[in-house]
Amino acid sequence: MQVLILGAAGMVGRKLTERLVGEGRVGDKPVTRLLLHDVVEPTAPQGAPFEVATLTSDFSQAGEAEKLVASRPDMIFHLAAIVSGEAEADFDKGYRINLDGTRFLFDAIRLIGDGYCPRVVFTSSIAVFGAPFPEAIGDEFFLTPLTSYGAQKAIGELLLADYTRRGFFDGVGIRLPTICVRPGKPNKAASGFFSGIIREPLSGQEAVLPVPEDVRHSHASPRSAVGFLLHAASLDGERLGARRNLTMPSVSVTVAEQIESLRRIAGDRVAARIRREPDPTIMRIVEGWPRRFDASRAESLGFKAEKSFDDIIRIHIEDELGGRFEA
Amino acid sequence: MQVLILGAAGMVGRKLTERLVGEGRVGDKPVTRLLLHDVVEPTAPQGAPFEVATLTSDFSQAGEAEKLVASRPDMIFHLAAIVSGEAEADFDKGYRINLDGTRFLFDAIRLIGDGYCPRVVFTSSIAVFGAPFPEAIGDEFFLTPLTSYGAQKAIGELLLADYTRRGFFDGVGIRLPTICVRPGKPNKAASGFFSGIIREPLSGQEAVLPVPEDVRHSHASPRSAVGFLLHAASLDGERLGARRNLTMPSVSVTVAEQIESLRRIAGDRVAARIRREPDPTIMRIVEGWPRRFDASRAESLGFKAEKSFDDIIRIHIEDELGGRFEA
Repeated sequence: MQVLILGAAGMVGRKLTERLVGEGRVGDKPVTRLLLHDVVEPTAPQGAPFEVATLTSDFSQAGEAEKLVASRPDMIFHLAAIVSGEAEADFDKGYRINLDGTRFLFDAIRLIGDGYCPRVVFTSSIAVFGAPFPEAIGDEFFLTPLTSYGAQKAIGELLLADYTRRGFFDGVGIRLPTICVRPGKPNKAASGFFSGIIREPLSGQEAVLPVPEDVRHSHASPRSAVGFLLHAASLDGERLGARRNLTMPSVSVTVAEQIESLRRIAGDRVAARIRREPDPTIMRIVEGWPRRFDASRAESLGFKAEKSFDDIIRIHIEDELGGRFEA
Repeated sequence: MQVLILGAAGMVGRKLTERLVGEGRVGDKPVTRLLLHDVVEPTAPQGAPFEVATLTSDFSQAGEAEKLVASRPDMIFHLAAIVSGEAEADFDKGYRINLDGTRFLFDAIRLIGDGYCPRVVFTSSIAVFGAPFPEAIGDEFFLTPLTSYGAQKAIGELLLADYTRRGFFDGVGIRLPTICVRPGKPNKAASGFFSGIIREPLSGQEAVLPVPEDVRHSHASPRSAVGFLLHAASLDGERLGARRNLTMPSVSVTVAEQIESLRRIAGDRVAARIRREPDPTIMRIVEGWPRRFDASRAESLGFKAEKSFDDIIRIHIEDELGGRFEA
């Protein structure tokens, strides 16, 4: 099967590529060709057991989406997005990429016609939800985004479901929880500290905790995120019916529980590298975020996240640190 | 205040115009000018106590939405839409008018800037919901449209909420229930019989009932629909917070209860003008429709529908038949 990844240069896109190269297949279907797309040149992986091509363009420009699907990929992972902070800061850019780009892609697929009906896996986000929430957000809770990014993702979900219902493609939307532990440098995202307070101490660095320890949030590892994508890719669409968008499973923990996990796995000295420095702005933003999900539907469809935050830390140490950390 | 109505030539648009002409005000603010817009020439009302202008155009064409808001109306009623059946039959046209048109309008308002922030009242629809449903659909039930029209209305709701949150305008979206009794000729809408089995018998005509009598559905009169619009127009936006889209109240009845009301008000001879002629296609469509709403939020905000189906019939006789019917 031919696979296309939009947003291939991002963290999840790179890990998905790596996994496809390692496994050579999606479900029981061998990959014959992989097309990597992003607005910056994606890195072509070495040693892939299939042909790899890269393409760099802005898919929200007229005519670009058509080029992406001209070879009729069987499987399309649409991970491309302007992230939350940028979509809030630049209204036009957020709508252009996250709404128009997505619609151009979907229309380019639709207009091929001729029986072409690929599986499209779309990464949505828990940003489609906005406070006030029930204690756990269930599968039938309404979408009430409080950011432009969340609104754009919710619109993407509606388009995905409608285009699927009309038979233009076979879509699955997955709402990713906060990915933790994100590898790499600290970034300026308001959610960055959830990863930072684990990643930095394990590398011998100090991390800042800007919120109280009773803040609760939901997480899944980058490894799980890739697992969600691959499971969505090979899922029997019939099992989804008309409701094509799913909240992914996650581990709901307080910051205190995160720190307790870190102490359990890496010891007191590592956990002591977290410095409390309350930041009222971040506290206010985080207050509007979901705390817990009841992702029963996705779980019954076989999507799997970690069972504990300990697992999430262990996976970070295995996948990013070669099994070692700075004690 | 200056008022703009998009979709002014439709049934609800005409009744809203009539009511504005009669009352001369929206809430406690006198209307100074009314601009009526539609894709076909709207009829300018006679004897209005304010200036009336009409404008005919396709607002989904580049540059047209800008003309509509160039005079900076304080109050915008956006009722324009391709209806359900047509949006399903013509995919491109439905998205062009219901999504692009709506977005062009919202962007035209946004791009005026300069402190311009009108109230925008947008008519959404219960088509944003799709089966399976709970027994009563509450205010936090998720939007799962099963038609392109429903998807386009749900997207309009998301845009309305986001543009409002960003301060580009002050929006209120109202999900209209099935309007009953629709005046005029029978039409080919699958929901047409809900009005037809009341309207035709009261005019001495036979009506066809294509579904079993235990079918349950929710209704409000055209008079209530106009009432919803005017209440939304003068509602304090602060009371809505971030959740700007509301399911309107309605009367939930079975077809048997509709017929019982008709018999009570107009007698056995009138009720006997209904001919049962089951239509499997219409039965299947109607099965996917909501039966009942719990519109607590709208009710607590002061939106009012009829209390009984008897009231709905009486209003039809008063407003459309001059108080008389064919016994």
